[in-house]
Amino acid sequence: MQYIIKEKNKVKYRAEKIEAFIKATFLTAGATESHAKLASKALISADLRGVDSHGVARLSGYIRLWQQQRLNMTPQIRIAHETPSTAVIDGDLGAGLIVAQEAMNLAINKAKRVGTGWVAVKNSNHFGIAGFHAMLALEHDMIGICMTNASALVAPTFSKDRMLGTNPIAIAIPAQTEPPFVMDMATTPAANGKLEVCERENKVIPEGWAQDKDGQTSIDNLTLKKGGAMLPLGTDRIHGSHKGYCLGAWVDIFSAILSGANYGPWVPPFVSFLSPPPNPVGEGIGHFIGAMRIDAFRPADDFKQHMDNWIRAFRKARNISGHPPVQIPGDQERLIALERLKNGIPIHSKVIEDLDQLAAKLNIDTLT
Amino acid sequence: MQYIIKEKNKVKYRAEKIEAFIKATFLTAGATESHAKLASKALISADLRGVDSHGVARLSGYIRLWQQQRLNMTPQIRIAHETPSTAVIDGDLGAGLIVAQEAMNLAINKAKRVGTGWVAVKNSNHFGIAGFHAMLALEHDMIGICMTNASALVAPTFSKDRMLGTNPIAIAIPAQTEPPFVMDMATTPAANGKLEVCERENKVIPEGWAQDKDGQTSIDNLTLKKGGAMLPLGTDRIHGSHKGYCLGAWVDIFSAILSGANYGPWVPPFVSFLSPPPNPVGEGIGHFIGAMRIDAFRPADDFKQHMDNWIRAFRKARNISGHPPVQIPGDQERLIALERLKNGIPIHSKVIEDLDQLAAKLNIDTLT
Repeated sequence: MQYIIKEKNKVKYRAEKIEAFIKATFLTAGATESHAKLASKALISADLRGVDSHGVARLSGYIRLWQQQRLNMTPQIRIAHETPSTAVIDGDLGAGLIVAQEAMNLAINKAKRVGTGWVAVKNSNHFGIAGFHAMLALEHDMIGICMTNASALVAPTFSKDRMLGTNPIAIAIPAQTEPPFVMDMATTPAANGKLEVCERENKVIPEGWAQDKDGQTSIDNLTLKKGGAMLPLGTDRIHGSHKGYCLGAWVDIFSAILSGANYGPWVPPFVSFLSPPPNPVGEGIGHFIGAMRIDAFRPADDFKQHMDNWIRAFRKARNISGHPPVQIPGDQERLIALERLKNGIPIHSKVIEDLDQLAAKLNIDTLT
Repeated sequence: MQYIIKEKNKVKYRAEKIEAFIKATFLTAGATESHAKLASKALISADLRGVDSHGVARLSGYIRLWQQQRLNMTPQIRIAHETPSTAVIDGDLGAGLIVAQEAMNLAINKAKRVGTGWVAVKNSNHFGIAGFHAMLALEHDMIGICMTNASALVAPTFSKDRMLGTNPIAIAIPAQTEPPFVMDMATTPAANGKLEVCERENKVIPEGWAQDKDGQTSIDNLTLKKGGAMLPLGTDRIHGSHKGYCLGAWVDIFSAILSGANYGPWVPPFVSFLSPPPNPVGEGIGHFIGAMRIDAFRPADDFKQHMDNWIRAFRKARNISGHPPVQIPGDQERLIALERLKNGIPIHSKVIEDLDQLAAKLNIDTLT
């Protein structure tokens, strides 16, 4: 048992221990060795980077989808169409955790040959955190781009209907001696995991995150469960919610209409207790993944030196009195990862309970 | 004289008349016939689409920059580096209005050959509205993407320093029988032209658009002139301003660090009464332009039929009581353009006065 410190219903475990548990789960469910490895690497990266909602806490969700035959543990991932700089990948209903990495590898290979590679993915599933997949490009001196659609929770400006997912965009850009620039953002004021945190802690949600079923501002942490919707980034028209709506729409179209996946209100949900919407317009959920070779534009060293300069200039920007210093996108997640690699990853007792049940069901060793 | 109707210090002129005046101005300043045509086409598109701040109202600004030798009327636009799917273009300090179109043409040609084309531009200048350049890809059954950096007006989350421009992103996506999806958005709650409108009308600005020199919320329409800054999309940390900051940073890095232009606080201003920042880190301002051939992913007809379906589904989303129906990005600008093509473009009397002075200075026929 990897117990290190106990705080607020959380116990810390070593990353390797959790990763091994995830891998064992996928293997037991029938995944190949290499797929199980890819899946565990993607999930643990979320826990390491502090995105607790997208890591091992979701493991039993993938297994439930598999049991419902809504996720294929032995996908034959294949290229449906390609040109020198593009491809569409059919994920064969595999876990997005795995499919997205295959897609990024293909994008990287295309970028090696013709400068950039762009892969639209259909027939996939939830892929964890977008930033993980984008960052795979960094070690090749490439910029990585990753987006995905997701089941509809967000209402367009002036609407009371949920039409878009929280559709994240991630971009990873290498620097020289500074750490890379890594943005990974939902196209909403807050990801929906934050509403669940408010629910668990019995707190109201901040005004400007969500609306009720009639489209009125809501601070009820259960508003989504009562037919409400999340708001796009910008919150309201005067503060640019139509721009957040544009961003979410863009991610939806690139991820699903380019690839042939489901889009808008037709995107199937991740949670197994909700059925996929009837009359699908495509296959599974969609991603859009790109890799750009830096030296397809200018020498990588020049670029990375200027990235260092950019990063340092922004770090030196004067902060507002009473606020922390300006951060570079990715700073926070990187610092959390360093700390968690050293001291372990805190897992909530409810997640542990869920994982213990999962282990019993699959007859594998528990995490604890 | 193309007088049609007079309202609130505005007189309407036919688009062709204004376009001819812009072209004559560029020709008289020494531009080639083809460059003058490109410049006038780009500027008039802003007036037609209702983005009055970016159209003919800026014409005398380009001329002032030229007179200061900060804009080259006879640029030798050249490819500095290229691969099959990428290029860097050196704009030779030409008007961005022209340089960006050359860049998009190159991107389109690359997309024809290898599926996508991505062109980073350095040593350029203000390019008008991003949406115009992105839309050039549509007639080729391609998706057009266009972004640019701009002189620093926006403070990153928690900072009181202006570090980024309002850095717009435009994406144009073709549909079948529906009009195209065209998003064109500053990465701030409002473009800075809107602050100037509030100033002209002697109104306070909405809370959440800008801050004062100490980083405190400001509703003063002169706050930018008093050392304040615009806020990123999302307005404050709790509503996701760090995401607006990420978006603006992304545009800055793609536009300028990939190409070798100035970035962040080093971007030279458009207005001639402000000098470029000392110690430039690159050449001119930067753009990033892309074209993606639809059938590099799937047959264009399939894609466009699904775009029609997407657009219709969103149009049918129920609107909130008391609010207008849900719009598709580009709807508003398209409707304004249809109306203005028919009835003329309203030009403010102050702009007319400015254009009359310009005509006198260049010894060409006045617009009026």
